[in-house]
Amino acid sequence: MQNVLRNVWYAAAWSCDLIVGKMVDRTILDVRVVLFRTAAGTPAALSNMCPHRFVPLSMGKLCNAGSTIECAYHGLRFDAFGACIGNPQGNVPRGARVRAFPVAECYSAIWIWMGDPDLANASLIPSIDFLMPEDWAVGTGVSVVRSDYQLETDNIMDLSHIEFLHPMFSSEAVRSGKMESRQEGDTVWSRRMIYNDDPPEFIRKAFQIPAGKRVDRWLDVRWNAPAIMALWTGGVETGRPRAEGIDWRSAHFFTPVDANTTLYFWAISFSRAVDGSEQLAMESRDALRYPFENEDTPVIEAAHANMRGREFWSLQPLILRGDGGSIRARRLLQSMIARERGETPTASAVPLD
Amino acid sequence: MQNVLRNVWYAAAWSCDLIVGKMVDRTILDVRVVLFRTAAGTPAALSNMCPHRFVPLSMGKLCNAGSTIECAYHGLRFDAFGACIGNPQGNVPRGARVRAFPVAECYSAIWIWMGDPDLANASLIPSIDFLMPEDWAVGTGVSVVRSDYQLETDNIMDLSHIEFLHPMFSSEAVRSGKMESRQEGDTVWSRRMIYNDDPPEFIRKAFQIPAGKRVDRWLDVRWNAPAIMALWTGGVETGRPRAEGIDWRSAHFFTPVDANTTLYFWAISFSRAVDGSEQLAMESRDALRYPFENEDTPVIEAAHANMRGREFWSLQPLILRGDGGSIRARRLLQSMIARERGETPTASAVPLD
Amino acid sequence: MQNVLRNVWYAAAWSCDLIVGKMVDRTILDVRVVLFRTAAGTPAALSNMCPHRFVPLSMGKLCNAGSTIECAYHGLRFDAFGACIGNPQGNVPRGARVRAFPVAECYSAIWIWMGDPDLANASLIPSIDFLMPEDWAVGTGVSVVRSDYQLETDNIMDLSHIEFLHPMFSSEAVRSGKMESRQEGDTVWSRRMIYNDDPPEFIRKAFQIPAGKRVDRWLDVRWNAPAIMALWTGGVETGRPRAEGIDWRSAHFFTPVDANTTLYFWAISFSRAVDGSEQLAMESRDALRYPFENEDTPVIEAAHANMRGREFWSLQPLILRGDGGSIRARRLLQSMIARERGETPTASAVPLD
Repeated sequence: MQNVLRNVWYAAAWSCDLIVGKMVDRTILDVRVVLFRTAAGTPAALSNMCPHRFVPLSMGKLCNAGSTIECAYHGLRFDAFGACIGNPQGNVPRGARVRAFPVAECYSAIWIWMGDPDLANASLIPSIDFLMPEDWAVGTGVSVVRSDYQLETDNIMDLSHIEFLHPMFSSEAVRSGKMESRQEGDTVWSRRMIYNDDPPEFIRKAFQIPAGKRVDRWLDVRWNAPAIMALWTGGVETGRPRAEGIDWRSAHFFTPVDANTTLYFWAISFSRAVDGSEQLAMESRDALRYPFENEDTPVIEAAHANMRGREFWSLQPLILRGDGGSIRARRLLQSMIARERGETPTASAVPLD
Repeated sequence: MQNVLRNVWYAAAWSCDLIVGKMVDRTILDVRVVLFRTAAGTPAALSNMCPHRFVPLSMGKLCNAGSTIECAYHGLRFDAFGACIGNPQGNVPRGARVRAFPVAECYSAIWIWMGDPDLANASLIPSIDFLMPEDWAVGTGVSVVRSDYQLETDNIMDLSHIEFLHPMFSSEAVRSGKMESRQEGDTVWSRRMIYNDDPPEFIRKAFQIPAGKRVDRWLDVRWNAPAIMALWTGGVETGRPRAEGIDWRSAHFFTPVDANTTLYFWAISFSRAVDGSEQLAMESRDALRYPFENEDTPVIEAAHANMRGREFWSLQPLILRGDGGSIRARRLLQSMIARERGETPTASAVPLD
Repeated sequence: MQNVLRNVWYAAAWSCDLIVGKMVDRTILDVRVVLFRTAAGTPAALSNMCPHRFVPLSMGKLCNAGSTIECAYHGLRFDAFGACIGNPQGNVPRGARVRAFPVAECYSAIWIWMGDPDLANASLIPSIDFLMPEDWAVGTGVSVVRSDYQLETDNIMDLSHIEFLHPMFSSEAVRSGKMESRQEGDTVWSRRMIYNDDPPEFIRKAFQIPAGKRVDRWLDVRWNAPAIMALWTGGVETGRPRAEGIDWRSAHFFTPVDANTTLYFWAISFSRAVDGSEQLAMESRDALRYPFENEDTPVIEAAHANMRGREFWSLQPLILRGDGGSIRARRLLQSMIARERGETPTASAVPLD
């Protein structure tokens, strides 16, 4: 896959979906990978192709309490580091191995590093405290989308689409809010403030605003490369400090399968300090799947198909007020890719507010 | 799409299929177009891609009594001329628009001009008087065929296939008739006369030839670029003038979707002067769909697949007596395309009768 | 199709599947062919494309007691040599014909020669005496596999996969047997001997070894280009000469449809000298289809997909002890292809035992 950042962590699976004794077959940046969890609980990721006759290792079976993969075809065995440790036909050929990818587990997810393994460092994973399973009940989901992953970044970074795609969650106030986008180092923020709003009932309920009172609301999205977004949406009685308000938290990670396919990892979490947080997380997860898969996805897939492989900027997209965050994220990512390749960045020079 | 005529009218829809308040999504010459009809009844055609995030406009909704399209994703609005006339996030960006295509409505159809809009002139649409809805009851249909459109032209211009593909309508006399093809300006005629025939019963009935009498019959096809054909098939008692006979009239328009797909627009009409013409048109339309979709289409699609993208002449096709009309049409179209591109025509020099 | 041997016989059909009056549509080396059997019983193979409008001849019908094909579209007729012998529209155009391919029938199969017809000689078909229908009851089958055909050669030439893919037929002894591969002229042998084995029950039964006795077993595969394999598997009481033992015989022919698709022709035969040989052949044929289609095929198709069109040696395959036969066959085929093209062979120099 061309034009992607390699030396960065990609979300590969939610922790809860990687179970000892089960293999997960993923394609990431057009590379086939098999994920599994050793008997000790450590996640591992190997190239999903036996070096003998190229059969996907994920068609084989896990042995040794889940820590070793045996190829389905001729029984070669590989450990979690990719070393061939068993050959039914005799000695293990010298140096026989498959590529192993660095993996890390944190924030309820399994992360994979597709680039230079010497640069892999778990501290580079953007901190998402509200996905730490010790303190938060986390509901998670995965969807496959037939689209380039950056159209998904655009979707999350510009929430003015809510009014049109998600009438159920809509309030005109979202659109008329004060928008702001900002880059801080390698982080991009897209923020939206709505002051002194007389909100619809579901908003009142979500943020516990008494009848008759007005509300100040916010929608804050934080982006990190390659497509790791955290979203805080909250509200407080007008005039009161934000810290007194109520926040809903969700995470949105997009991992390129190939140039036309993206894995969408989404999560919503609730503090374990709250009664019923686990059930709330499960219910909210189930409630979110519908709009993501039935409202966002068809539109994004149709846009991707309409692009027919043409590069985003070559289509001279119209820039609207809500695009600040997504354009900043696209530019920053492009410059990081250029830096990684030792090239001079050539991102668009469209002026933003 | 390569090697097609651009400055010409293509059939885009039958008039009856374009209804106020409904969008029609078409791909023509590999360009996605959305058709709709304004509140005033005027047909319009726009590029089916919002210039902001590339979503097909046909996924959105019609507002303003059908005259305005609102994009499904962020609510941009476009009028029938392609101008952006509404942006929920603020002012309309200067010059924001989508491409509008010239359209015309006549002969019961909506026609679209994919080339230079300055050259579009409705008078260039070939006259097909028997599709004028004022005087004729017209039954229409549309089929999608997985083939290059010129193989469809061949099909209509050489009706000697009737004996083999359409045994139901067959009579050996069709094949043994006197064939003639002729070019008149930019029009090609393929004509077939059968004199003094003792016809099968269905022919007698169609042309009202009394038992015991012989018949003179004709099959006349007129072609105009790009693939607009009118067909008159009729008969009269042998020795009587043609004007006393009975004619059946049908039209066959082929519009390239892309190099491998064609829209087949077909129609049959009956003079409103005749009682029951409307019902006759509907019944005949229904009767024609079966042979078109089940007898012609599979053979044409299989031929197209067999060609595997190779150019027609590169396959050195055998030329038979019935090919005069189709070969003249192919040559004329090729020379029109070359003229449009400022090239010297290079059409085949196979001699015709 | 690139990089294939042309001047060689490919299996095109089993004799029993080519019936007078029925056409068989095949694609071989990416060329479409129609097979039929004339009234006299002689097999014939023509290019499956009418030279007039490119319709597959196999969509037409057989006339003249099965000896002539009439095209479905305009009724052109072709004989078994490819000559056009009938044109409903008039005289047959001079030289009108389709390409005819040399065919031969022997060893219960129809063989086709896709290369230079002057070099076709039925004596070049590798002898497989146990498929001669006079003396042997032969059960046959055909499967379509989404794979390059050489991965199928690998499968048959290295039977150490039995233990892993076919647990039903498995015995660990297969793997620990003495393996040997050898090239004799243009023939490659892959042999496996298991001495003094205490076999599982199904082996005892197959080779009629009394309880308490030990067995000497063999698995011999003979390869000839392009992918014609004969397999003898047998056993005898330890210490007795092989001639006293019992042999099971099967044949495995692979014919490339295109670079990603293979026809797998398989057969098993029983001497007609044995009572019930015909029924045994049918039952064994039915029993073999399951493991071939449900155990081998998924693994081979997945390996092929994993290769993504990359050349075998470019993937630097690990070489195991059981690979001798398949590697010799790959090298020999490559050198035959190079010889046919007048090139210098460049096959891998991996050392074998």
